[in-house]
Amino acid sequence: MAGYCSERVDVHPLTDMAENALLRQYEQQVKQAFFRIEPALRRLSSVQHETDFMEQAQAIAQADLGFNLPQSMLADSWIKPLDIGRIYAWCVFETFRRLSDEFFTTRPLAREDDDAFQVFLQECGFHIMDVSPCADGRLAHVIRYVLRLPYKAVRRKSYAGAMFDIDDSVQKWVETEMLRYREGRPNSADMPTRYLKVAVYHHSSVAPENEGCAAHGSDTRRAAEAALARLRAFRQGVENSFCCGASIDLLLIGVDTDSDAIRLHLPDADGEIDPVHYIDAMELYQESKHGGLREESGVFRLIEESCRRHQGTPPPQGMLRLSARLLRGNFSQIDYVRQYHKGGYRDIGHQERFIGMGIGFEEVQLRNLTYFAYLKTVEEGGKDMDVGVRIFSALNVSRGLPIPVVIRCDYHGQVPGARDRAVDRCRQLDEAVRTRFQDYAERGLLHTLLMVRDCHADGRAETIGSSLELNRPEIH
Amino acid sequence: MAGYCSERVDVHPLTDMAENALLRQYEQQVKQAFFRIEPALRRLSSVQHETDFMEQAQAIAQADLGFNLPQSMLADSWIKPLDIGRIYAWCVFETFRRLSDEFFTTRPLAREDDDAFQVFLQECGFHIMDVSPCADGRLAHVIRYVLRLPYKAVRRKSYAGAMFDIDDSVQKWVETEMLRYREGRPNSADMPTRYLKVAVYHHSSVAPENEGCAAHGSDTRRAAEAALARLRAFRQGVENSFCCGASIDLLLIGVDTDSDAIRLHLPDADGEIDPVHYIDAMELYQESKHGGLREESGVFRLIEESCRRHQGTPPPQGMLRLSARLLRGNFSQIDYVRQYHKGGYRDIGHQERFIGMGIGFEEVQLRNLTYFAYLKTVEEGGKDMDVGVRIFSALNVSRGLPIPVVIRCDYHGQVPGARDRAVDRCRQLDEAVRTRFQDYAERGLLHTLLMVRDCHADGRAETIGSSLELNRPEIH
Repeated sequence: MAGYCSERVDVHPLTDMAENALLRQYEQQVKQAFFRIEPALRRLSSVQHETDFMEQAQAIAQADLGFNLPQSMLADSWIKPLDIGRIYAWCVFETFRRLSDEFFTTRPLAREDDDAFQVFLQECGFHIMDVSPCADGRLAHVIRYVLRLPYKAVRRKSYAGAMFDIDDSVQKWVETEMLRYREGRPNSADMPTRYLKVAVYHHSSVAPENEGCAAHGSDTRRAAEAALARLRAFRQGVENSFCCGASIDLLLIGVDTDSDAIRLHLPDADGEIDPVHYIDAMELYQESKHGGLREESGVFRLIEESCRRHQGTPPPQGMLRLSARLLRGNFSQIDYVRQYHKGGYRDIGHQERFIGMGIGFEEVQLRNLTYFAYLKTVEEGGKDMDVGVRIFSALNVSRGLPIPVVIRCDYHGQVPGARDRAVDRCRQLDEAVRTRFQDYAERGLLHTLLMVRDCHADGRAETIGSSLELNRPEIH
Repeated sequence: MAGYCSERVDVHPLTDMAENALLRQYEQQVKQAFFRIEPALRRLSSVQHETDFMEQAQAIAQADLGFNLPQSMLADSWIKPLDIGRIYAWCVFETFRRLSDEFFTTRPLAREDDDAFQVFLQECGFHIMDVSPCADGRLAHVIRYVLRLPYKAVRRKSYAGAMFDIDDSVQKWVETEMLRYREGRPNSADMPTRYLKVAVYHHSSVAPENEGCAAHGSDTRRAAEAALARLRAFRQGVENSFCCGASIDLLLIGVDTDSDAIRLHLPDADGEIDPVHYIDAMELYQESKHGGLREESGVFRLIEESCRRHQGTPPPQGMLRLSARLLRGNFSQIDYVRQYHKGGYRDIGHQERFIGMGIGFEEVQLRNLTYFAYLKTVEEGGKDMDVGVRIFSALNVSRGLPIPVVIRCDYHGQVPGARDRAVDRCRQLDEAVRTRFQDYAERGLLHTLLMVRDCHADGRAETIGSSLELNRPEIH
């Protein structure tokens, strides 16, 4: 547990201490694996001219990182200096591959009651929860940690500034409705449930001017308004394209990336959302912490009351129930940050370790590990990649380290040729990202790892290529 | 009617002579407008150093092309030679804009009974006909001319080698099913109709080795097999992804680009298609021409008999009825080529005038006018564009003329922000095509015209940009 302190703090009565401990253990394990890379490479660098360097190097790698390095990257250190950048990118990729493998094999973040969430969601009046957070790595843990939701039961697609692709969401809406009609999945179309679209923006309470959302110039209000405008356009797009009544509910959430406390912008009785007023989880947390609140129903009443006070008519009961669950989950997360991060993260700024680009990354549920760019082509998602590359220019390139980019294409293995097409798309993305950031690629400052995953089979991700050596070293 | 001869030929009794005349008149009018560009520019070139060049030039343009040229393109011819390439591209764009405007205003190719086709299609057991022809310009008239179908009632998306994007078709299938369930459009989901997916490959009877499908190395059998494999993968993809029984029928069509005669590869009773055996429209045309065949039902019987003879069990009655209609339409087209093109086109090779790239181009229903690349991004559709640019390198660049590329994004105007997104996508495509073919673009050998169109409003296409002057000259 080096590098972090775990304090005994007084927590909210609703906080799930056992889950906090479990989430903490997982976060520590994964984050430490990445944190250990740089110190290990410093040690490597310092011994590179010694005659038994190869042996020393592998010993350091084994001891500190748990894997061997490719011999080819070490062999010529007596002739020319070690290419630490290459080794660094290789280690980031290898560490990610191990995290990914473990995630899909042991399911460290799954809970037994994950399946119950779909039932709960339907009781609240929704058949799907489709969440578009900002691509910022400081929101990558929003589903499993900040909101304490089962990551499999919620759709997550990240975009810079939460400016999600409306056509992509409309397409998902169409597919969802079709499955309800045709196959009764997840419920049949005559059930009066709705499609819940959520956008998540973010801000920084510690450094609001600098550490807010880069895509909106760290302007919290602009971030909220832009995300809300996107939500409205999505709903209106569906309503204008398909008749027979609206079937979409909207929810806007803000996250303070320092404390992980959320703001809920709930719709009023007419479904309208106010970008300026919201329910503040931190306030409710403080209010209710010592009042003996021990049931989620208590949170429900708090929210209902708060809605009546601030926006007149509260939203339907189902939306309130879901909100109560989100807030209760967030209370746990507020305590998580208090317990393990002294109430506020030390890394209030970007500290991502790699860019994740493409479609997939279910295994990434941790904060500040990955900058996401959900995209089908670099041509369409180019601006999201520009933001990511800018972040990593400051984090890595400024120090001479390359930008590690994991390219990922999930596919549905039951469709003939789907794997081949995913592989092709991976290579196409690889080529496109190298063309767009040619200057970096040519100077060895951008490295890529290519992976595909059959999300239908729900197995491990498969590595299909890399700009670096792929042959996995034998473990002694 | 200069440049073509219209002969009196003996025609098939089922041939629609009135329609042939109408289609001919339209083809002539549009094609001639493009054909007149080069001779007009030759005349322009020859007078460029005369003192009253500006007046002479506009007089030539008005007389030959029907519009004025931008003064700025002519003004400096006393200092430096005219940039004929730029003027050429400008004229192609202007001619296309006029064709497009006229198409959407006067509907020259519409028929009164177009709406009846959807009823007929459903009677045949299909609720949609989704056709993917090869992108080759010699197939651009396949819907309205070769098959004599109403262009509005049939979905057409062209891909090099007819190698259509399976995911795009699955998405269309999903949307189609959803609309049937949710809105009863075009018919309700409990009607036992099916989704008909058609691929159209092509070959050349005159020069099979050289003028077949470039994407398949002019190998007719390979072209047929590849298109069939794509059809099967599409069907299987839908069947594997969505349960509750298959609902897709397949049809493979080959077109002889010299005579426009089609080959129908009909499914057998089990829905299976043979890539080698087919019903040859030209054969049936010859067989039935003098036999007093005067009803479509006669064609029906001919096909049924041919199926029994060649493949054992004929397909269901509905597929036979549709095939009879396609063949009857094709008889008219065979006579069209005999009447107006001496039984075989003079331009057996590529003679396209521009590349049409993006989504749309409903107004292009003519042969050998446009090389299509149906694509959302150049990144995905790059190979189709490569084929197109290769064709135009031979046609234009080899002579010093630029490649005119019309970029088009149709949008659904009822969706908020859809026009803005279409405009953005147009500009994104423009940038991407210039990057991919940078060498051409920088040497002035690639020019672009950017257009968007609200296909919901069904109005005219709107020009939003160009690499050339856009200000439309006043007509005197």
